[in-house]
Amino acid sequence: MPSTEEVIENTESIAFEEPASSHVFNLDGFLSPDGQSSALLILNQQILIAGVFEKLWRNYHLHVCADGGANRLYEYFEGKEESRLSFIPNYIIGDMDSIRDEVLHFYLEHGAIVVSQSWQNSTDFMKSLQLIFLHFHYPELQRMLKTNDFAHNYGIDDCHGIETMYNKERASCTMHDIDLLVLNAIDGRFDQTVHSISQLYSASKTDPYYRMYFLTATDLIMLIPTGGALIRYSKEFKANCIKNCGLLPLGGPTTINRTKGLKWDVLNWKTSIFDGKVSSNNRFSGETCCFFDVQDPIVLSIEVVLSKISSFI
Amino acid sequence: MPSTEEVIENTESIAFEEPASSHVFNLDGFLSPDGQSSALLILNQQILIAGVFEKLWRNYHLHVCADGGANRLYEYFEGKEESRLSFIPNYIIGDMDSIRDEVLHFYLEHGAIVVSQSWQNSTDFMKSLQLIFLHFHYPELQRMLKTNDFAHNYGIDDCHGIETMYNKERASCTMHDIDLLVLNAIDGRFDQTVHSISQLYSASKTDPYYRMYFLTATDLIMLIPTGGALIRYSKEFKANCIKNCGLLPLGGPTTINRTKGLKWDVLNWKTSIFDGKVSSNNRFSGETCCFFDVQDPIVLSIEVVLSKISSFI
Repeated sequence: MPSTEEVIENTESIAFEEPASSHVFNLDGFLSPDGQSSALLILNQQILIAGVFEKLWRNYHLHVCADGGANRLYEYFEGKEESRLSFIPNYIIGDMDSIRDEVLHFYLEHGAIVVSQSWQNSTDFMKSLQLIFLHFHYPELQRMLKTNDFAHNYGIDDCHGIETMYNKERASCTMHDIDLLVLNAIDGRFDQTVHSISQLYSASKTDPYYRMYFLTATDLIMLIPTGGALIRYSKEFKANCIKNCGLLPLGGPTTINRTKGLKWDVLNWKTSIFDGKVSSNNRFSGETCCFFDVQDPIVLSIEVVLSKISSFI
Repeated sequence: MPSTEEVIENTESIAFEEPASSHVFNLDGFLSPDGQSSALLILNQQILIAGVFEKLWRNYHLHVCADGGANRLYEYFEGKEESRLSFIPNYIIGDMDSIRDEVLHFYLEHGAIVVSQSWQNSTDFMKSLQLIFLHFHYPELQRMLKTNDFAHNYGIDDCHGIETMYNKERASCTMHDIDLLVLNAIDGRFDQTVHSISQLYSASKTDPYYRMYFLTATDLIMLIPTGGALIRYSKEFKANCIKNCGLLPLGGPTTINRTKGLKWDVLNWKTSIFDGKVSSNNRFSGETCCFFDVQDPIVLSIEVVLSKISSFI
C-alpha cells in the first residue's frame, strides 16, 4: 500500500531530539571551513555580498576566478584601489573570452596564475572545478607552474590540458574533501544559474570530495544528499540570520520521505516542478535543528541575512 | 535500436526553410500582445527593467500586483512621483503580509481594487493567476467589485474566496487565451525563483489559456511545449536584441528530439540537470528562426538586450 502524503503545520519553534544522520551541516561557522583544503570560486557576475566578501575571502585557502569572474573581483574594489592588492586570486582560468586585458595584466603582475583553456565542451565553471582538484591533489601541477610561465601557458596544453590531467589523476589518486564556496553562481543570466545548479548535482556524483555551496545576496544554497541531512544551528543564528527556505527538486521529480523541524513538515511527499508542487516559502521551526530525509538529492535554499551573518563566520 | 545522440556545431548564421510547427513565437513585437486579453503581473522583487517598464505597462490591458509587488511598483517611481499616478494597478491581491500601509492606501485611493486572501496553501503568485482568470472570464466578479467595497473585501471570502470562484468557473466556462507577462519572477529569493518556474510548468497543464512569459533584467523566459516550437525573429532583432540562450530541463530529465538553428544543434539529446547535462551558453544561429522539438515541456531562456529591445516593442 503506498504511504499517505502528509503536511503537518508546526508552531514557529519546536524542540525535539536530533535524529541521527550521516550528513550534518552546522550553519554557525558554516562559512569558516576548518578543513585542510578550501576554495572560494568567483564566477562572472557582479559581487553583491559586500560586507562579508572580505571576511569570506580570508576564510578560504585558495581563491580562483573563472574568466570574467576576475573582472568582477577587480570591479569590486573600484573606489578602494588600495585594498585590491590584498585580494589577488591564486588562479584565473577559462577560455578568456570575458576577462579584460587590463584586469588580466593587473592580476598577472601581482602573482596570479592565468591558465588559458579554449576547449568549448567545458564551461569556465567546470574548468575551475578541475583546476581546484588538481591544485589540491596533483603536486606535478605546482612544478609545472614554477618551471613554466604565462607566455607558454605554464606548459599546459591550451585547449584542454587541464581536463586531460584531471581525468588522469582523478582515476588514480586518493581524494580528500574540499570545501568549495561559489560566488555569483545564481542570479545572473538564467541559463548560467541553471548550469550552476546542474554542476551542484553532477559534481556530487562525479566529484563527491567537493562540499559545494553557493552564496547569493539572499540565499545559501546546497545539495541535500539521498538519505538526507541534519541542519544544525544555534538559537542565536536562527533568530538573526535565517528567514525562509525551500526544498527544490531541480534534479527531477522525487519524494521527500520526511522532514522534521520545518514550519510545514511533510511525510511521503511527492515533489515536482513539472507538477507545480514544491516546498517553497517554508521556514525552520526546529529550535536548534532541522532534519530532511529525501529519496534523491534535492536543493536546499536557505534565506540568510548577510548583514547579520558576518558575526557568525 | 535507440537513436544516436548528436551535437552539430554550426556557423554563426545559417539559413534554412522554416520547419512546420503548431507553436510559433514571434520575437519581434513579442512584448506587444495583440490579443483581446493581456495582463502584466508584478511580483515582489525590485523592478530592474527601467527603460522598458513604462512602455511594457502600456502594452498590456490589465495590471496586477501580487502583495508586496505593489511596494516595488511604488518604489519604482521614487524621485519621479508625478509619474506614479499614471501607473495605478487594476488589482492588488495576496495575503497582505508584505504590502506597506502607505502603499496600500495610496493605490486604494487612486482606484486599485485591493483583495485580501489569507489562505496559506496558495502563494500570492497563484492567487494572482486565479484573479486574472476571473477578471477575463467571470462577469459576476465585476458586479461584486462595483457593489461592494474594500472594507468588506468586495464581498469576497477573505480566506480563499478567489480560489473557490476560480475552481467553479474554470470547470464550466469557455476559456480564451490570455497573454501574461510576469515581472520579478526570477532573481529574487531562490525558492521563489523555483516556485515561479514551477508555476510556468503547472499552469501550462492546468491553465493552458495562459501564454506566460517572464522578463528579467537579462532574459526572456518561456516554456517550449511537448512537440516543440518555432521561434521567429527578424535579422535586425537577432543582431540587436538577442545574445545567448539555454534549453533548461527544469521539469525533470527529458530528451530534446531535434533543434535546428542553434550554434550547437542537437539530435536525440538526453538532457538532465541531475546529470549535469544541459544546453546552456548556446545561441541562435538560424538567420530568421530557430526550431525546437522536445519530448516534454522545457524552459527556454533567451538573453535579451533590454536597452535595444525598447524599439521593437
